[in-house]
Amino acid sequence: MIHILVAKIKRVLQGCGAIAAFEEEEVKLLGSVGSPFVIRVQIALKLKGIEYKYVEEKLGYLSETLLNYNPVYRMVPVFVHNGKPISESRVILEYIDETWKQNPILPNDPYQRALARFWSKFIDDKCVAAAWKSVFMPNEKERSEASKELLEALQFLENELKDKFFGGEEIGFVDIAALFIPLFQEVAEFQLFTSDKFPKLYKWSQEFYNHPIVKEIMPSKDQQFAYFKARAESLAAPSK
Amino acid sequence: MIHILVAKIKRVLQGCGAIAAFEEEEVKLLGSVGSPFVIRVQIALKLKGIEYKYVEEKLGYLSETLLNYNPVYRMVPVFVHNGKPISESRVILEYIDETWKQNPILPNDPYQRALARFWSKFIDDKCVAAAWKSVFMPNEKERSEASKELLEALQFLENELKDKFFGGEEIGFVDIAALFIPLFQEVAEFQLFTSDKFPKLYKWSQEFYNHPIVKEIMPSKDQQFAYFKARAESLAAPSK
Repeated sequence: MIHILVAKIKRVLQGCGAIAAFEEEEVKLLGSVGSPFVIRVQIALKLKGIEYKYVEEKLGYLSETLLNYNPVYRMVPVFVHNGKPISESRVILEYIDETWKQNPILPNDPYQRALARFWSKFIDDKCVAAAWKSVFMPNEKERSEASKELLEALQFLENELKDKFFGGEEIGFVDIAALFIPLFQEVAEFQLFTSDKFPKLYKWSQEFYNHPIVKEIMPSKDQQFAYFKARAESLAAPSK
Repeated sequence: MIHILVAKIKRVLQGCGAIAAFEEEEVKLLGSVGSPFVIRVQIALKLKGIEYKYVEEKLGYLSETLLNYNPVYRMVPVFVHNGKPISESRVILEYIDETWKQNPILPNDPYQRALARFWSKFIDDKCVAAAWKSVFMPNEKERSEASKELLEALQFLENELKDKFFGGEEIGFVDIAALFIPLFQEVAEFQLFTSDKFPKLYKWSQEFYNHPIVKEIMPSKDQQFAYFKARAESLAAPSK
């Protein structure tokens, strides 16, 4: 309903030449289906109701566009706003939150914002790498050490979870960052948190997956599985 | 001169009971002399003219205060504002910039802010670890690989440097993050960038060190050396 109204207003304003610049706005996301870092950006855009063009980049294949937009990491997600590219999912999330103010994902209070940045960085530094290693490292001892690290990290998150979501009653920055964990649990069929080990995280993961926007964005289990498999293979391939 | 004036104004306002809250403000920094991550916070506070209490934490020794304020990483820097602790130097820098608006260290434009966040994260992810490994890894092959990685990373920074500083005409977020590199070059006596290899970074490091605030904050070479030695020893010690 709102879309129809917006489209009508646009047409009227276009008619009198008032919003050429507005009409030219380009919002583009380079992603690979199943990538948790891409899903982060998709959820933020959906929460804010931003329309964008999605460009699929095949995992393990470096398109010219990707090399051009992200010469440093050569990875998705790359977010492009009016021709200007941004890489690194947490950096993209902050940009989106600063550019489109509706439905903020970072809290307004500077201290709460600092905590959100701290915990989302913690998830990337401590949970994501450990989760990955705990499944994909060839050496059993390394896998076991990574699992131990991961459980310690999850305990910190369990203690930090005070409300329905990390962001309170609504999904916020830390929830979006943390989506990697339940997704990993599901795809790797790895019992990271069960209702008895980490009851709050377990409940959170249920709430998160049942959120209408998350449900809409989340790729199918097959797509997620295909992504993880391709990623593991591309990491296992001899480096150039 | 300004300090005397501020003290006078405070006394007048205190006299009429107007600034009880202001007077109670607690700004504290837990650090270890020589730590590049602590120096980052000190430069930001100095640039903004914020007075604070500095609490020295002995490297390798976990005080109760440190454990209490930073149970996750148990490391300095920890910044404490009115009893609320914040860890992770880049998170602290953002908090300081949001809380005290004078002399901003992040640009005002969202896209430029995103770039500053991207490059400061790049410095931490790609330069700091590689610089460290290139000197301290016991295995020569690993040291040599890390050196190669570091030089590739520095080339990206060299290409990115357009003005006097990364922040333009004034020191900004990326400059503060990047201080690790010339400091490491100096302490490890490691010729990371010379005027012919990385002419722009070389010039930048001279400008940076000659900035009056950086000059004032930077610990002596002996202090920096002692920090690096202690840090290397604490990392080489068997983990608990």
